[in-house]
This record gives sequence, structure tokens and C-alpha cells, in this order.
Amino acid sequence: MAKSDIEIAQEAEEHSLPIAEVAKKIGLTEDQLIPYGYDKAKIDINALKDKPAKGKLILVTAINPTPAGEGKTTTSVGLADSLWAIGKPTTLCLREPSLGPVFGVKGGAAGGGMAQVIPMEDINLHFTGDFHAIGAANNLCAAMLDNHIKQGNALGIDPRRIVWKRVVDMNDRQLRNVVDGLGGVADGMPRQDGFDITVASEVMACFCLATDLMDLKARLSRMVIAYTYDRKPVTVADIHAEGAMTALLKDAIKPNLVQTLEGNPAIVHGGPFANIAHGCNSVQATLTGLRQTEYTVTEAGFGADLGAEKFVDIKCRALGVQPSAVVLVATVRALKYNGGVPKAELTNENLDALEKGIPNLLRHVSNIKNVWGLPVVVAINAFPTDTEAELKFVEDKCKELGVNVVLSEVWAKGSKGGKALAEEVVRLCEQPSEMHYTYELEGSIADKINAIATKIYHADGVDFTPSASKQLKQLEDLGYGNLPICMAKTQYSFTDDQHKLGAPEGFRITVRNVKVSAGAGFIVALTGDIMTMPGLPKVPAAEKIDVTPEGKIVGLF
Amino acid sequence: MAKSDIEIAQEAEEHSLPIAEVAKKIGLTEDQLIPYGYDKAKIDINALKDKPAKGKLILVTAINPTPAGEGKTTTSVGLADSLWAIGKPTTLCLREPSLGPVFGVKGGAAGGGMAQVIPMEDINLHFTGDFHAIGAANNLCAAMLDNHIKQGNALGIDPRRIVWKRVVDMNDRQLRNVVDGLGGVADGMPRQDGFDITVASEVMACFCLATDLMDLKARLSRMVIAYTYDRKPVTVADIHAEGAMTALLKDAIKPNLVQTLEGNPAIVHGGPFANIAHGCNSVQATLTGLRQTEYTVTEAGFGADLGAEKFVDIKCRALGVQPSAVVLVATVRALKYNGGVPKAELTNENLDALEKGIPNLLRHVSNIKNVWGLPVVVAINAFPTDTEAELKFVEDKCKELGVNVVLSEVWAKGSKGGKALAEEVVRLCEQPSEMHYTYELEGSIADKINAIATKIYHADGVDFTPSASKQLKQLEDLGYGNLPICMAKTQYSFTDDQHKLGAPEGFRITVRNVKVSAGAGFIVALTGDIMTMPGLPKVPAAEKIDVTPEGKIVGLF
Repeated sequence: MAKSDIEIAQEAEEHSLPIAEVAKKIGLTEDQLIPYGYDKAKIDINALKDKPAKGKLILVTAINPTPAGEGKTTTSVGLADSLWAIGKPTTLCLREPSLGPVFGVKGGAAGGGMAQVIPMEDINLHFTGDFHAIGAANNLCAAMLDNHIKQGNALGIDPRRIVWKRVVDMNDRQLRNVVDGLGGVADGMPRQDGFDITVASEVMACFCLATDLMDLKARLSRMVIAYTYDRKPVTVADIHAEGAMTALLKDAIKPNLVQTLEGNPAIVHGGPFANIAHGCNSVQATLTGLRQTEYTVTEAGFGADLGAEKFVDIKCRALGVQPSAVVLVATVRALKYNGGVPKAELTNENLDALEKGIPNLLRHVSNIKNVWGLPVVVAINAFPTDTEAELKFVEDKCKELGVNVVLSEVWAKGSKGGKALAEEVVRLCEQPSEMHYTYELEGSIADKINAIATKIYHADGVDFTPSASKQLKQLEDLGYGNLPICMAKTQYSFTDDQHKLGAPEGFRITVRNVKVSAGAGFIVALTGDIMTMPGLPKVPAAEKIDVTPEGKIVGLF
Repeated sequence: MAKSDIEIAQEAEEHSLPIAEVAKKIGLTEDQLIPYGYDKAKIDINALKDKPAKGKLILVTAINPTPAGEGKTTTSVGLADSLWAIGKPTTLCLREPSLGPVFGVKGGAAGGGMAQVIPMEDINLHFTGDFHAIGAANNLCAAMLDNHIKQGNALGIDPRRIVWKRVVDMNDRQLRNVVDGLGGVADGMPRQDGFDITVASEVMACFCLATDLMDLKARLSRMVIAYTYDRKPVTVADIHAEGAMTALLKDAIKPNLVQTLEGNPAIVHGGPFANIAHGCNSVQATLTGLRQTEYTVTEAGFGADLGAEKFVDIKCRALGVQPSAVVLVATVRALKYNGGVPKAELTNENLDALEKGIPNLLRHVSNIKNVWGLPVVVAINAFPTDTEAELKFVEDKCKELGVNVVLSEVWAKGSKGGKALAEEVVRLCEQPSEMHYTYELEGSIADKINAIATKIYHADGVDFTPSASKQLKQLEDLGYGNLPICMAKTQYSFTDDQHKLGAPEGFRITVRNVKVSAGAGFIVALTGDIMTMPGLPKVPAAEKIDVTPEGKIVGLF
């Protein structure tokens, strides 16, 4: 029987490298590390601040996600190992997993098979405490906000217009909608409220976009947490919470160093939502890679329509760096699913379905190449059921766009299964390229949303509901008009309808809600209800998780 | 101008010992440590498991707390340093501070003046993440409980009889009373609910009483979280949450090693409430001290009526060890406050007030000596305004009970100010003593509560409200009759009325509520409303806390 991810990880952990040796591989000395145990460390970024970020950035993105699974993280880990295997020093940068999915349905998020980061259990549970620090900062702000109201409300905050929610790092639907402040005069002010999962907090987005601790503090200060009775925004600075919030984050902001199964360096740091936020690991992590190694591999959330677009238009703007190459991950199974095959039948060869589904892949490829002007390779994450005819079909179709397809077998073979991909990535990185943003910042909010919808989603246009139109105007009047856009749309489709797979034509996008994340520095455009507090399934993954008397975790997947 | 605690601490941190050197002082090798930075480490207790716990235990307790301040933690730190100074290897064991008071009124909790533990800022903010892990375990249980109801409620849980609350490590009164599960069918089951601060979680009490990881899991399994429609208790084991909860706590349960300003070892681990729980650092921490050094100094929460009583009747039972000596901390100021002097006038000599207030001290001394049979010394934590006449008065009164009084100047002078105290403690430890519990476990719950009230508080008796009487019977019928008692009473008075200072006579105690903490393993008897979720003051301490560009914390006190 094949070993599970946790079994592979735990075997590797027994002979993993001391973290100082991993650090040495990317030019970090022991005194630039803050150890957390023997296999995890935070990196003292202050020491690296003045080094130029000269490395080449490789973005790993994917087709629209399907229940069939794509393997973006697995491909990222395997690509980094493979680059090392062909002699190219590389830093892998990944997002930190949230506790919510670990105990819910999805399980852990540290790669899979022979392409994982370790210590897998620690990374999935608490890790170095970053998400707890983010949650505490978020909740301190909430407590201070409600305390301000209870203590006389000098700012005139309208309790019906508080936009700041408390968070827990847990899938807990019971907290989605609450009435709090009940009990009487001594217990606060009754109001409608709700909780998000920690990764949905704007603190997380600020944390991931901040270029240093003082930039983080400035971003936190700017966050809009409520509006007054006369509709003026109330910021964190207005309630004097930014200092204590930043103090809570002073260690968390340092990137976390761990290793792959093959002992190569991985920085796992930050993990914002990819719909209401930008879905990338921290700028601190990416900058550290670019400073320390020739190559840095990083990933963006969801499919390229959401993740890569935000990477280009939000993260690259904060980072001041563009990717030298993009890897678009797909599986034959997922393409067949996009072609209308139910999940249970994906193991059968089906060229018709592939032909129906491949436009999804091709549209992403074309966007990357033609809209953003970035060199791209398609990585097919291999499954045993893929047939030669299917692979050849994908290859031929991509060739027509001038793009190569490489079979990635890193899940089964580690770096041995990714050398061809690594070589193609190196080849692409040597090509000159100049990235174009999807839109310039100077346009109106509506124009920018329109640019994303028409150029990236290939929509005919955008409709704004009357309330969204009103919000647009308010935000522009408040001076937030020149921020980039963060689209909150279903990840399953180019459209705003999750059931429209493939590469739909002749549709419009409806924007129902527009709000500002002034600290993160973007306008969030919501095309529907976005779930910011997941629930647990009938049998939560947590029921299987256990720990042995020796402290070994079992049942985590 | 005198330096603030944080200034003293930060100066000391610049030349603090590497944690491995601190560990060496108590016989711990580097491979028994899990580093968290260079000045904090967790101790791998598995390696120490089979060592006998042969050291002598010194309990630091106090008179009833007053707004004048007693300095129990400061005295504990200074005593440990002073024992080292007279050549006695000592482990100091303290509770971890909660974030709530740090951002509220009280500030940090790591000692004061020249008697502190460092790194002071880290210990006060997140530290090694234990409290976040406890909060996550608590909240996972809550999410799984509500999910069970939402997914069909096979156990028949009565949503009106859920006794498990969610927690945040924050003073947040807005969450005291909430209605959650609103929003509709997909969002849970609407019910009345509320949040506690993390330290009030029963997970914290289990964590602090557990003798190892599997004992922790067994305790978590037994916790009663709700009752069914037919009034049967529902435990954590019934919803299969104990494995994942223990997994979340596998690192947290390892004790944290730091150092005093003088470079001596301090284990700072766990910190349960001292009213609804037992208010002591973890059994793991205390056992580590007893295994590694000749002396272990530890403290109990609040005054001796609550803290020392629970230490004796709850913690010593779990630990299997009794204290060899007790230090009772008082200040002349606090005794005058007990004698009716308002806070503003405590700096004036006032022998009349001292005479009125000293019975509080004497009753505690007598309880320790005569009820529990433990050797005791009174430590007067010196203030510059204390007069010689006042000190002599206290000394004479204690002499009458055969107990010595020692002036402790550790706040101002560190170990140089505590040698006399250390010598008296060593002398007491050499006296043979046999501890008596306040009650045997076999009696009825009412008898045990009665024993505490009459022997320790010197009440005439105990009244149970009709609902408390009913609860008593239910708990005994459910088989919880043989557990020790955890009294939840005001900490300010021997009575259940916080305004009755000194040593009141002729009063009765009213028990209004009785509940079981089946995992912690005690019956909680509540004499009134106990605040388990504090609020923030008009100007929270958080408003002053900030961080410099170099990551240095300022404004924490």
C-alpha cells in the first residue's frame, strides 16, 4: 500500500537537516536565524534589509480549481527541489496552512507525496504561531473598538456600520452571524456582528504585503474598521490600536524557514484568502528568496484568473519585482472535469472531454502570455491514469500557442520527476520579458474592474448593482480611487457563476458590493457572497487526528 | 528617575545568558531543550519522566489581595535568586501571563524591579504560544460541538444546556453574552452563548494538572461540555474531539524555561484562573523543578484562603508532593488597607490601622501552620514608606504565633535584598512537617465545602441556595461526589463579600451554584457571579504599547 503523506513526512523528519544547515544553502548564517525547535527558524530580516532583490521569480499558478485536484503546492515544492537537482540554488516560498481546513475537509497543506515541506505536522498545527498572532492583533482591535463605544463613543461610531469582525482560526459556522454585547449596561452595546476565519482578516493581508515592520504598522493604522453616524471612516489609528497590534506581530513578521523532503530551503509565511484578499505568501518571504538565491519559486491562490491576476496587479506592485517565468499547473483529470465529466469517471481516457475542457487551460495560457507578457510553461501534474494520447493532445494544443507542456512527476518521484520542468523554467527565465499590468492605477474603480473582467475573464462587460455603484462613488470621494482591485469571485469559473466551467463566452460579471481594504491597499469587488467563515463537515477530519504517548501526530492528512 | 520594569528588563536582556547555560544550572543538557529563540526553550519532559521528584517545594502565597499591591511574583523571583545567592540550586516556577491584563489595566506579570523574569516582553506577549494552543483546543471543541448539533444531533444535546464556552485571550466584554448560530439553516442553530478569557477554559486547568500527555488526553476526554435533553452529561469523548485537542497541545505541554534578571532558571508554564480553577503553574513545571534541583519555588493565585488552599487540596493531590515551607507575602501598606485606610493615605505611619488590619495576616498564618501543618515565614515586601515601628509591630504579632517575619528587599536589590528570607526558608525546609489536607475526598460535596469555609475562612457555616442543593445532588448521582472542591469566591475577603476586609467573624458563606470540571477533576462551588471575561478600562494599557523600527517593545509595564 502506498504511504500516506504524513508517513512519508515523518520518515523524512527523522533524518532531516538541522535548520542552520538548510539556511546555509541560501547564504544565511546561524546568527540570522531565530530557532523554533531544531527544524524551524524565523529569519532575522533586519539583517538582510539592504541587500538587493536580484533573484529570478517563478510564479506557480493553475487552471480553475476542480474537485479533481491540481497539485499547485506539490508542483511548487517539486519544482524547487528539481531546480536544486539541476544545480540552481532556489528558495521555495509557500503560504502557511490555516487550522480550519486541517480539522475540516481539506486536511493539511504542505504539498504531497515526494514533494512536501516538513515538519509537516508542525507546519499544519500552530507552526511558529504567526496566525495566532494575527488573530490576537485582529481581536485586540475589535475589543478596543467596542470598548470605545461602551466608554462613551467619543468618535461617534455607528454600531450598525462597524465593518471589523473578530476572527478565530477554526471552521466554526456557529459564529458567522451573532448578536453580541448582550447582558446589560456593564456588558457592552448590543449589535449585529459576526466572526471570520483568521486568514480572512485584513491584518493577514497587511501582514503579507508589508515591506517591513513600520510599513506593517502604517498599513494597520490605515485600516477602516467602522463608519461614524455621519458616514466618516474610522481607522485603527483613531482608536490608537496600531502600536499594540504591531507589537503583537513583531516576531510573526519574520519569515519562517523549513525544508523540503529533500532538505532544500522553504520559506512558509503568511496565507491570506485568495478572494477577499490577494492569496500570496508574504512579501517578506519572497524578498528574502530574491535576495538570497538565483531562483525563487512562489505560488498564488486558486486559478490564474484570480491568483495570478492579483499576484501581478497587487503583489508585484508592492514587491517592485516581476516574475521571470510562470508555471501553469493542470491535470488531465481536471481538464476532463472542465469538459463535463463527473468526478467518478475521470480515470477513463476521454479525448472528447479533454477537447471540451482544454479551452480553460488555453485561456489562462493566453492571458499570461499575451495580456501580462510573461513566459509560461504548462506543467501537467501526472496521474497514473493519464494516457499518452491525452498528454499528446494537451501538448499539441499548447504548442499552437507557442507554449511548451512538461509532464511533472514530482508527486511520485520528487526532484527526479521534475527535471524537465526545471530545465524549461530556467530556459524561460533567460528570455527577456516585460510584464504589463492588467490596468493602470490611475483609472476609475469601475474602469479597473472592467479591465480585469474583459481582458482576463473574457467577459463582455461588468454590471454594478445600484448599491455597488453608490459604494464606488463613496470610496472614490473618500480618496481610495487609485488603489488596485481585489476581485472576490468564485474560483471555479472565469465567470461569476461557479457552474460555468471551461472557457465561457458571452457573459457579464455582476459586482454586488465594493469595499476598501485600506491597510492592505486594495478595493475589494464582490461578485457574490463570499464565505469568510467555513463550517465543519458531517465527520470532521479532526475526529481522526490523534497523538501517541511519545507526542507523534497520527491521522493528519 | 527610577527605571521602569521594562527598562530594567531590556537592559538585562542585552547580556542575558544563552538558554542552554541557564538549563545547565539545573542539570538539563542541550538535547533536552527545544529552543524558541536564544532566550527561551521548552523542556523535553519525556527525557526526565523516570527521575524521582526529590526536591523541596516552597510555596509562595499572600494575604488577601488589595489595591495596594503585595508583590507575590516579585517575592517568588527574588527568593529564587536569593537561594542561588546562598548556594542553594533552585528552580523558580511561575504562571504565564494572559494577554488580557497586559492590554487592560494590570500590565505584565513577570515580577518587578530587580526581581523579574526575562525576556519580559516575550513572556507577556504570546511567549511560546501555549495560551493560543489552549484557546485553539478549546474552540475546536466548541466548533465540533455545535457542528454535531447542526449535523443531526445524534447525541440529543440540549442547546440550552451547553456548558462549554468559546474563549479568546483578550479582555473583551462585548463577547460575554451573545446569541450565535444566527443567519439561517446553513449557519448553525441559534442559541444563547458567551465567551470566556482563555485562562478560564477548563482546558487550561487540565493542562496545568496533567502529569503527562496521555493524562492530559484522558482529562480532556472526561470534560463535560453539555447535557442531553434527558439531562445526561455529554463529554469531549462523546464528540471525538480529544485526539485533535491533544494534538494541538503536544508542544504546549512542555514547560518553558527562561531566566531571572540574575540569570537563574525560571520555568514559566500554564496559568489557570484562581477562582473557577486552581490558580497554579503546571504540574509539569513543578515536577521538573523537583526533579532537577534541591529547591523549587512556586506561587499560588490570590490570597492563601483561595490560592494556598487549592494548592494543598487540589494541586498537591495531583502532584503527590507537599510543600516543605510556605512564604506568606504581605506589605505594611496592604495591612493598613485591610485596617480601613484609603489607598491615598497608605504612605503615612499608622499603627492603629495596622493593628486593625493585621488579623488578616495572622489568620492566614494560623491556617497554614495549624490547619495544614506547614512551616511558614512571613515576608514583608518592603516599601520606602514602611516605618521601623510598623515593621516591629508586625514582627511582634507574628512571633506570638511562633512565626518569623523577614523583610524582603528583592524589588530594590534583587538577591542582595532576599538573603535573610532565603535563609529562613532553608531553615524551615529542614524542619520535619506533615501536611494535612483541609478535607478528605470521601465526604459529601457539602461536607467538603463546609470544611473549607469553617476551617480556612472561619465562617460559621455554609448555606446552599435551593438550586445549588439540587446541583449537589445531581453531581453526586452522576458519580462526581469524590472530587476535591474548587471554591470560586471573591479574592478580597475571607467572606463572600469583597468589602469585608481584615479577619471577619460571625458570617456564613452562601454557595449559589455548583458545577463539575470533570477533566480538571474538581467540583467548582460558586459563591457569587465570577467574572470570566474581563473588560477593558476607559484608556486601555494597549494604547500606550508600541514597537520601534528595530522591533523593540515600548510602553509595556
